[in-house]
Amino acid sequence: MAADRRDVRPEFHPQGFAPVSPQRRGLLRAGLGLGAGSALLAGRGLRAEEVASPPAEAPYSLSLGPGVVDRVYGQPSRFEAGVIRRNVPWLTASPETSISFTPLQHQQGIITPSGVFFERYHAGRPTVDPSEHRLMIHGLVDRPLLLTMEDLRRFPSVSRIHFIECPANGGMEWRGAQLNSLQFTHGMIGCAEWTGVKLSTLLEETGLTRGAKWVLAEGADGAHMNRSIPLEKCLDDCLVVYGQNGEALRPEQGYPVRLLIPGWQGNVNVKWLRRLEIGNQPWFTREETSKYTELMPDGRARGFTWPLYAKSVITFPCPEMPAKGPGIYEIRGFAWSGLGKVAQVDVSLDGGVNWQRARLQEPVLPKALTRFTLEWRWDGRPALLQSRAVDETGFVQPTLAALRRVRGTNPIYNKNAIQTWQVKADGTVFNVQLA
Amino acid sequence: MAADRRDVRPEFHPQGFAPVSPQRRGLLRAGLGLGAGSALLAGRGLRAEEVASPPAEAPYSLSLGPGVVDRVYGQPSRFEAGVIRRNVPWLTASPETSISFTPLQHQQGIITPSGVFFERYHAGRPTVDPSEHRLMIHGLVDRPLLLTMEDLRRFPSVSRIHFIECPANGGMEWRGAQLNSLQFTHGMIGCAEWTGVKLSTLLEETGLTRGAKWVLAEGADGAHMNRSIPLEKCLDDCLVVYGQNGEALRPEQGYPVRLLIPGWQGNVNVKWLRRLEIGNQPWFTREETSKYTELMPDGRARGFTWPLYAKSVITFPCPEMPAKGPGIYEIRGFAWSGLGKVAQVDVSLDGGVNWQRARLQEPVLPKALTRFTLEWRWDGRPALLQSRAVDETGFVQPTLAALRRVRGTNPIYNKNAIQTWQVKADGTVFNVQLA
Repeated sequence: MAADRRDVRPEFHPQGFAPVSPQRRGLLRAGLGLGAGSALLAGRGLRAEEVASPPAEAPYSLSLGPGVVDRVYGQPSRFEAGVIRRNVPWLTASPETSISFTPLQHQQGIITPSGVFFERYHAGRPTVDPSEHRLMIHGLVDRPLLLTMEDLRRFPSVSRIHFIECPANGGMEWRGAQLNSLQFTHGMIGCAEWTGVKLSTLLEETGLTRGAKWVLAEGADGAHMNRSIPLEKCLDDCLVVYGQNGEALRPEQGYPVRLLIPGWQGNVNVKWLRRLEIGNQPWFTREETSKYTELMPDGRARGFTWPLYAKSVITFPCPEMPAKGPGIYEIRGFAWSGLGKVAQVDVSLDGGVNWQRARLQEPVLPKALTRFTLEWRWDGRPALLQSRAVDETGFVQPTLAALRRVRGTNPIYNKNAIQTWQVKADGTVFNVQLA
Repeated sequence: MAADRRDVRPEFHPQGFAPVSPQRRGLLRAGLGLGAGSALLAGRGLRAEEVASPPAEAPYSLSLGPGVVDRVYGQPSRFEAGVIRRNVPWLTASPETSISFTPLQHQQGIITPSGVFFERYHAGRPTVDPSEHRLMIHGLVDRPLLLTMEDLRRFPSVSRIHFIECPANGGMEWRGAQLNSLQFTHGMIGCAEWTGVKLSTLLEETGLTRGAKWVLAEGADGAHMNRSIPLEKCLDDCLVVYGQNGEALRPEQGYPVRLLIPGWQGNVNVKWLRRLEIGNQPWFTREETSKYTELMPDGRARGFTWPLYAKSVITFPCPEMPAKGPGIYEIRGFAWSGLGKVAQVDVSLDGGVNWQRARLQEPVLPKALTRFTLEWRWDGRPALLQSRAVDETGFVQPTLAALRRVRGTNPIYNKNAIQTWQVKADGTVFNVQLA
């Protein structure tokens, strides 16, 4: 009987499990052999003593865990408690007008988990009862609409995978601040599968009258966050979404409904969407005059700078995820473009002198995070890692020096510069800016 | 000043917000107009009185919610508290050897939220410390390996979107039981973006010796769940995954590491994976002899029936999501195949007499849930809704009658039959089986 212990089931042994039998341990030991001499093994930093030793008989494999009744809505393992959104308290006047950052250093695929998708509030996060919420569409239309959430869900629906990025992502670096962190330099971004209705479908329902050229989107938050959007973009690929990663939108993302303006600055993707007004010119709201504009070197301000251009960053190694001694690694990162698909990503190990083509992970979707990887045989000498994205329109991600030559150091927004990570001999990684 | 209230920011008014000014209310009212006469509007069940009335000034739009510091790991809105996994207590002897069901009736895109991804345990859910966990690969190999999680993450990585389905999904219906629920008839499935290492990469590292033909996968749960898998499949598209939907695998899905055997029965995707043994023949474990086999009408049992064939189901309307009176709706559902991509889905409104081609939502990925939709102008008369998937190999989803002719009524597994939802005149939906 003892040799068959591993097939014992709890229904027969309600008291729990006995340790694996000694015979079985011997079998495992014998099966392991001693062949730990592979060069590849050594290259990956595998330790010979581990390869030659039997597996630990960890207590977990001998205990019966809970069953299906304890977690009707699951959570991450308690060993992942460090994978959380973080914020910078000194960055803004109050937490209600602030931002939290996605832990990109831990993100493994192109989907950002809804639990850690970055937040940006202009006046806190309202709690909205979906049965009370209405979306009004009015202005230069034939048939104004006042829609309940139930109404919205009856329209033809689509699902799309897109990123949303705050244009202030990395904005502290225009003047030279260097937070030594991937999360804080690039974490104002997330990518999700969004589900909702094409805005063009809703506007087909209302009809448009002569002169219709702009749409004002307004949120139900305390700030009544509002932005003017050209009608052409609205009729192209914009969505009014109620779903995110297979479930209802999270409150942080505008529950029960938000705008999705693929590839454009995050703030235009108005959350807790309650009103769309169709007009013949932009409204020049506070958010597009005193905010979300860029002061240029000649004293003029650029406004309505909506699309986010090609950008990329290496997520391993990075300040939070150092290398551990020489050996074979895989450099990993994300690339994205607000203009379409990522066409190519190159990686440099020497601060931009030489470049190698990285592998892009399928599916490569327009205006979505795209994962790239490159094998890296690190000899243990200091390195300067960079990634450079090119999108399908031919746009090449610029250096920060090139951006500054055109835009100076006044802006906060639209910093899509190449990031340099300095890897020191001990494997630690630092955020540096090359001259 | 009053007219500009909506632009007030909390940094200037720390005490909160005053109500929207009366002038502004008047503006909204005027802007709405009265044009509610659209036939399409009426078709969608929009209520004229709502279209003509101003938006409710709900309290939520006037209050300042919390900011970025209260939820470092977010949760769904409290209004979504009903979107949870559910289980059937009488289905199994104990919750530790049971299953919970995905609320498919609420799933909006192809990604199943990790929080509600179905669970299946053979002996409860162990809590595994990733720093203690090891994966052993041994047997007919040149270089046995004992890998830490850190080792695993250093190998070249891939991310793929695939479904996992328990072959018992819908199994209660072989003999005629009819749970009136989408969640309980089809909820033993989930689809996620998985990240990890190709199993072929790991086997390249160990090398394979002469005679290697089968792989035994074993879990670290109390059951030491184990299955034999042909080497050919392992070298094709199998993964050893540690990531799910952008974050670490959830404990319910085998944290910190599981096998992913795309398109094959869920139980073969061994969770809490701790051992892979390479051999020259199958092990005929308990899970492939007394369990996960199908008793055929002639008294023989089919075993090793791994792939899940083309299948689909309508998720709206369904028993949990009834129709609300005549009008225009969108029929929605999921299709999938363990053999590759979904090529086509047809929908019938009359129990399989006439069929219409449904629209497939991009991206259509191999061995992944695929969303389909079809406009439905319901006249309010009783209907019998069905969907029928065809995959890229030409496999056509069969009727239950056709399946029973071949396999009888003894099996529990691999019921991929066409589902019929009966819509009654009042919009309620019932699970029925056609003769």
